[in-house]
Amino acid sequence: MKLSSSLAIAVLTTTCLLAGVAQAEDAPSKGEQALKYRKSLYQVMAWNFGPMGAMAQGKAPYDAAEFARRASRVALIAPMLGEGFPAETKGLPHSELKPAMWANRADFDAKMKDLVDRSATLATVAKSGDFAQSKAAFFDTANTCKACHEKYKND
Amino acid sequence: MKLSSSLAIAVLTTTCLLAGVAQAEDAPSKGEQALKYRKSLYQVMAWNFGPMGAMAQGKAPYDAAEFARRASRVALIAPMLGEGFPAETKGLPHSELKPAMWANRADFDAKMKDLVDRSATLATVAKSGDFAQSKAAFFDTANTCKACHEKYKND
Repeated sequence: MKLSSSLAIAVLTTTCLLAGVAQAEDAPSKGEQALKYRKSLYQVMAWNFGPMGAMAQGKAPYDAAEFARRASRVALIAPMLGEGFPAETKGLPHSELKPAMWANRADFDAKMKDLVDRSATLATVAKSGDFAQSKAAFFDTANTCKACHEKYKND
Repeated sequence: MKLSSSLAIAVLTTTCLLAGVAQAEDAPSKGEQALKYRKSLYQVMAWNFGPMGAMAQGKAPYDAAEFARRASRVALIAPMLGEGFPAETKGLPHSELKPAMWANRADFDAKMKDLVDRSATLATVAKSGDFAQSKAAFFDTANTCKACHEKYKND
């Protein structure tokens, strides 16, 4: 355990902990790290949302297993998003968030909860392998994206 | 359903699908999208790895629930990483991957599997709330990061 601990600590101070343990003076602020974190989460969301969207729109053949796999990932990522919007991110450049969110946090959080709930349903429905139901659940989820983006995301 | 579908399609063509459905000529290539995806995944990994590392190193008090929450997220993200290394990413700028990986794909994949396996164990152990065991499982996981980074990641 001694050796593996020291090895691991070397890792911790070099490559594994890009975020969370910033020490250097020019290290990104807590807010900048959170902003980067949430951008990353949205990127992961989009990557996995994409193939479902293509199937739901008839641009790709329906592959039930693939659809379900993507749906489960979206459902796993969705509950992580909230942590990406701490007060420290307020006013940061390179954010697509409209400042209006900060005065409407409860509404924003409710919209985020809609995403979490609908994506959980989507993941469950997708496992059934029923395309019509999966498609409907997908659009329900996509509409929670839209509801939040329209109000709180700059184009 | 009609209305929600059309709304959702509007979302799909604007904000939700950053990746996966690239149409414009200057859109990122498939490889560039995959590179961005994997960088995002590593960012999410690091964000969640960080608090565990701080606890494991005694820099933060052990919070069993928080540790277990972070461990479960790392275990969820780890199996997504493999998809971020398609052949289309070979030779792309802004990648930290050493070219040696492409000639050693089986070894790389085995190292990735070690991460997946150890992080799954970590998530299970973390739920026990036993600090010593959780810490050991954390270092086991961190060592799989290190093993791969040393061989295949540029500093």
